Amino acid sequence: MAESTNMRLRLPLLCIILEVILIILFGTLVEYNDDTHAMLWNENRTDSATRNDHENEFYYRYPSFQDVHVMIFVGFGFLMTFLQRYGFSSVGFNFLIAAFSLQWATLMQGFFHGLHHGKIHVGVTSMINADFCTGSVLISFGAVLGKTSPVQLLVMAIFEVTLFAVNEFILLSILGINDAGGSMTIHTFGAYFGLMVTRVLYRPNLDKSKHRNSSVYHSDLFAMIGTIYLWMFWPSFNSAITNYGDPQHRTAMNTYYSLAACTLATFAFSALVNPEGKLDMVHIQNAALAGGVAVGTAGEMMLTAFGAMIVGFLAGTISVLGYKYLTPVLESKLKIQDTCGIHNLHGMPGVLGAVVGAVTAALASPDVYGHGLQRVFADVETGKWNPQSRGGFQAISLAVTLGMALFGGLITGFILKLPIYGAPPDTHCFEDGLYWEGPWTLSATGLPLISAHTNSTTRKIERELVDYKYNDTTLHIFI
Amino acid sequence: MAESTNMRLRLPLLCIILEVILIILFGTLVEYNDDTHAMLWNENRTDSATRNDHENEFYYRYPSFQDVHVMIFVGFGFLMTFLQRYGFSSVGFNFLIAAFSLQWATLMQGFFHGLHHGKIHVGVTSMINADFCTGSVLISFGAVLGKTSPVQLLVMAIFEVTLFAVNEFILLSILGINDAGGSMTIHTFGAYFGLMVTRVLYRPNLDKSKHRNSSVYHSDLFAMIGTIYLWMFWPSFNSAITNYGDPQHRTAMNTYYSLAACTLATFAFSALVNPEGKLDMVHIQNAALAGGVAVGTAGEMMLTAFGAMIVGFLAGTISVLGYKYLTPVLESKLKIQDTCGIHNLHGMPGVLGAVVGAVTAALASPDVYGHGLQRVFADVETGKWNPQSRGGFQAISLAVTLGMALFGGLITGFILKLPIYGAPPDTHCFEDGLYWEGPWTLSATGLPLISAHTNSTTRKIERELVDYKYNDTTLHIFI
Amino acid sequence: MAESTNMRLRLPLLCIILEVILIILFGTLVEYNDDTHAMLWNENRTDSATRNDHENEFYYRYPSFQDVHVMIFVGFGFLMTFLQRYGFSSVGFNFLIAAFSLQWATLMQGFFHGLHHGKIHVGVTSMINADFCTGSVLISFGAVLGKTSPVQLLVMAIFEVTLFAVNEFILLSILGINDAGGSMTIHTFGAYFGLMVTRVLYRPNLDKSKHRNSSVYHSDLFAMIGTIYLWMFWPSFNSAITNYGDPQHRTAMNTYYSLAACTLATFAFSALVNPEGKLDMVHIQNAALAGGVAVGTAGEMMLTAFGAMIVGFLAGTISVLGYKYLTPVLESKLKIQDTCGIHNLHGMPGVLGAVVGAVTAALASPDVYGHGLQRVFADVETGKWNPQSRGGFQAISLAVTLGMALFGGLITGFILKLPIYGAPPDTHCFEDGLYWEGPWTLSATGLPLISAHTNSTTRKIERELVDYKYNDTTLHIFI
Repeated sequence: MAESTNMRLRLPLLCIILEVILIILFGTLVEYNDDTHAMLWNENRTDSATRNDHENEFYYRYPSFQDVHVMIFVGFGFLMTFLQRYGFSSVGFNFLIAAFSLQWATLMQGFFHGLHHGKIHVGVTSMINADFCTGSVLISFGAVLGKTSPVQLLVMAIFEVTLFAVNEFILLSILGINDAGGSMTIHTFGAYFGLMVTRVLYRPNLDKSKHRNSSVYHSDLFAMIGTIYLWMFWPSFNSAITNYGDPQHRTAMNTYYSLAACTLATFAFSALVNPEGKLDMVHIQNAALAGGVAVGTAGEMMLTAFGAMIVGFLAGTISVLGYKYLTPVLESKLKIQDTCGIHNLHGMPGVLGAVVGAVTAALASPDVYGHGLQRVFADVETGKWNPQSRGGFQAISLAVTLGMALFGGLITGFILKLPIYGAPPDTHCFEDGLYWEGPWTLSATGLPLISAHTNSTTRKIERELVDYKYNDTTLHIFI
Repeated sequence: MAESTNMRLRLPLLCIILEVILIILFGTLVEYNDDTHAMLWNENRTDSATRNDHENEFYYRYPSFQDVHVMIFVGFGFLMTFLQRYGFSSVGFNFLIAAFSLQWATLMQGFFHGLHHGKIHVGVTSMINADFCTGSVLISFGAVLGKTSPVQLLVMAIFEVTLFAVNEFILLSILGINDAGGSMTIHTFGAYFGLMVTRVLYRPNLDKSKHRNSSVYHSDLFAMIGTIYLWMFWPSFNSAITNYGDPQHRTAMNTYYSLAACTLATFAFSALVNPEGKLDMVHIQNAALAGGVAVGTAGEMMLTAFGAMIVGFLAGTISVLGYKYLTPVLESKLKIQDTCGIHNLHGMPGVLGAVVGAVTAALASPDVYGHGLQRVFADVETGKWNPQSRGGFQAISLAVTLGMALFGGLITGFILKLPIYGAPPDTHCFEDGLYWEGPWTLSATGLPLISAHTNSTTRKIERELVDYKYNDTTLHIFI
Repeated sequence: MAESTNMRLRLPLLCIILEVILIILFGTLVEYNDDTHAMLWNENRTDSATRNDHENEFYYRYPSFQDVHVMIFVGFGFLMTFLQRYGFSSVGFNFLIAAFSLQWATLMQGFFHGLHHGKIHVGVTSMINADFCTGSVLISFGAVLGKTSPVQLLVMAIFEVTLFAVNEFILLSILGINDAGGSMTIHTFGAYFGLMVTRVLYRPNLDKSKHRNSSVYHSDLFAMIGTIYLWMFWPSFNSAITNYGDPQHRTAMNTYYSLAACTLATFAFSALVNPEGKLDMVHIQNAALAGGVAVGTAGEMMLTAFGAMIVGFLAGTISVLGYKYLTPVLESKLKIQDTCGIHNLHGMPGVLGAVVGAVTAALASPDVYGHGLQRVFADVETGKWNPQSRGGFQAISLAVTLGMALFGGLITGFILKLPIYGAPPDTHCFEDGLYWEGPWTLSATGLPLISAHTNSTTRKIERELVDYKYNDTTLHIFI
């Protein structure tokens, strides 16, 4: 190995230093907001006779927050356990970088658009926003999965969270656009950032770990836990920070229908692109979710169930086709090694979502939205609003996001290339044994595969050959 | 094989045609309801000073909806992963037919009891109802699990959803009865529909796949994920569409106590019916849930925790005894091959729930319910109500449901028997390899089992024998 | 075996007798409370024009209840599946004793602090409290995991629930202290009770089952399901029964930040204490949760995110160090065989949480809390309140809890030692095969391990050697 992968000093030092910095900054800058502060909430209660506890934002947002939280930690974490011997790292590193990112995101997002008299005010909405930003980092993690050390991932998170907050600030505060479910801010940004990072970290000899870059039976079932949770709770994700009342309700429903249509498209095209008409778990696990990504911007608008289903169907279709035809090309021609295929799940559907959002915004009018118009498009009140310019700003936001993501990923990729983080060697990618103490029932070496041909199917099983003494005979056994 | 199981054209064509029809019908017929429409919700807000965002049905129903959603996709999906090599199909086909059924149910249920000026109005309540109807299809799926192609399942869903909506219309709109948790509409209907389908699809030679019709260690643990989620969220299921306030609160609590009592009965009788006093995972996975089914009708009434616990205890008892003594008889005498034992989990407990509901309704009086009577029994207001006739109508509803289910299942069974859907051959039932591309570590053939006898237990392990060359020796290895 | 482990009569008899007693007591003593009773809720509605359905406690508490419910059944259940062949028992016995305990806890807690005119009033708050008490029993289960029969566990639950209710009554009703998230009442009590029970049940020859007292690859992934759910929903746990409005909101947020900081500490110290810098799944699965335990008392106070993060960081640190250095000493010197290491996850962090709570209470003042002071510290209204004495009472409560737990565990341990419960023999601890009918792919005997040395790692794999006839040859195969 060119570089030691021992984490004994690197990882503890980085974790402790980061957490100490976080604690100091939280102590200096962060305060309870009006709905979490014992004095402020109860002062306001006295002021106005009509204000009651049920109006605390907690009751509007907390159930959605918990659903989002499940998506971040179980959804993303288990979705990535599909690799045969990278389950500990998938769930574990997901856990680590998410726990770091949500703290760092609270500060960065607070700094850019939550400052009140120099203090960052926190409550359930900031918790949801921090989880959202974390989601973006986890999307990028999908591109580099199996090829990075936990130290690299934490360093990536530091930069990605920061740039996420800048991009979000430009889109939401300067351009004033809508993106409640984050088709642009979360999915497009996370995907293209991650793709650029993995491009810079290109490993020409990754083939040496090829036999581990695939699933086994039960690892695919663990991954389905992640998929199903992401799918079920995506309506909560897209609606978590929309306005109270009809927008939140409508967003959840649009997302529900988009995902349902997307699932049928996914099964259809997964069977269609396979010579034997067999379904591919990779498609089901990933492409069926593209419908949630693709209504991330337009979900809160009057998209209608009909519109949502068309968008979902398209998203599932392009996502499956991407896995089948585009991913191999990206790897061979553009040298983009995208472990989880985030380009198909978050990249293209994110861009589709941005376009759908721009078109839907451009078609908005008081005839359709009535008094509800300003609950979706906040700038209506200012009088500056007109649907066409709003559509234009939405489109510009996509370009800004792509630029920020690619540029940020480029810089971050080069920083991650420094040989100081204990990255895994080419022969030991996609391997838990490198960073985890554990009960290894799977080979930690790179032995050849046994190809076992039976009369009905060709199957690939990896077994390691070991000599074992039994009653004076040496048995060659496969373990 | 008598019939090709290749899905390459059949499945994509069916999925795409169905989704296109759904999209067209949604575009023509479906509209946002008052609580999801930007104009309508905000118009009404202006009309009445007291109406506020927190009164949007979203905040009363959405947390329950998400719990129901988890039951449909994780609960049912993982519950059926108990088969040793049918996990992909269990979770995957569950996913597919649920995603289709919820869209189709929205239309069918809307057509029968949600039309407003020729349009179907949708919101969180219609989403819950669609998920409920989907649950019924998934119950039937349990009976035919492992013996049907995805195309057959989708065709079954088309018919079952339609008949479900008709039956629900007769019960709730014509007979005006109560069945908030669906003991009749969902469980009894789904169970007897599925049992009749599997009866018609009877396979005399299913023994050829017998060695695959059982669990392995980890598949039973995956199934427990499904069980526990169904168990935990059943209080939300039964209370999801009851009236706001005390009925929703009371229903959740009654269900909670019924399930707790049911669980103790399940463990008790599981050990009692085993010669060695050992617990059987099949019972724990299924019978412990019967308590939720059996309070599906009476849960919203003043059943009391005491009553709920008695019902739950009975339900668990009959369910275990059904698994042990009735299921083998149903198969050998009535030729009903019920893979998941839905008769024990949904059939008998559903009928019990209908009877308990009829009795509890017949005992209702203003002395017990006070002003709350009309919040449970809507027809009190019309003056037509008296408890005895209400009890009678509840009982009639059970008969109607059984008739509809058996008749519908019969017709649907014969339709599914046509040799055009790529059903699996008798030798390859309960086998993922037929419809899924995948990393098969398990044999895809029908090799004999190795029976390994050790000093303490008899265990059955399936291993496939493969010849492998190693240093000029041919090794006979088991993989 | 010294004692038969056959459960055929013992378990059914105990379950049925207990459930019959529960049903009789519920029938005699339990009534719907004002928010679940059809008459009472709607009477009150008529009295006051401003009271509306959304004010039913259901809408304030039910989403939190469901999160707590998931922690009890999925969280605790799957967390304990880490053992290689004890997954059925972990999830299954967890299920059984939780279903019993929540019913028994409703009675015991109702008896001690919920009596209204001789009746126990139940609703969502009593359901949460019953789940909390159940949590305490499940913590103790962690200490004796693998070494007890289900009958022993039920007997333990009877005593522990009862003593929990007594201790809770002393703390909350007599001493009037705060402990919303149960650092003392749940975690400290459950931990030290369980540690004392396992001390009394000390098995000098437990080494005979040593090879089963460890994890395999997939069992560790199942355990991570439990960990992640506990981690995600802990904010709901700590906030579930705090006052409406700002306390509930603040508690959830404090817990969220404590857990995030705790996770970074856990990863840091897990790598630091390993010679090769490798992460240990035991630490990640358990120590990362200590942050939730440690803010169980102070979480509802004005701890600030800053304070919560410091507490979480400390909790993660002491928990990892406990697993590494203290647990082996407890076993060798004090003869405490603590299977799950509950002393590190619940014991020490619980005590830390009690101390943090006492200090935070002692620092409370109207300057910080304003009118919100009496929403956190109920006795402010009575005029008896001053922060220093409150801090003192908090500290006294910790001592009371420790005393009650150790004394209760001692008595209970001796009761569990009677040779009538079918406890597993030393050779068959940590073994599902003893109590479960099942598809054993793992050896049920105590065969020696094969140590397979490869060039990069040492791995331990357990395989059982079986002779198998194949074409007239006897093959020695490992299954």
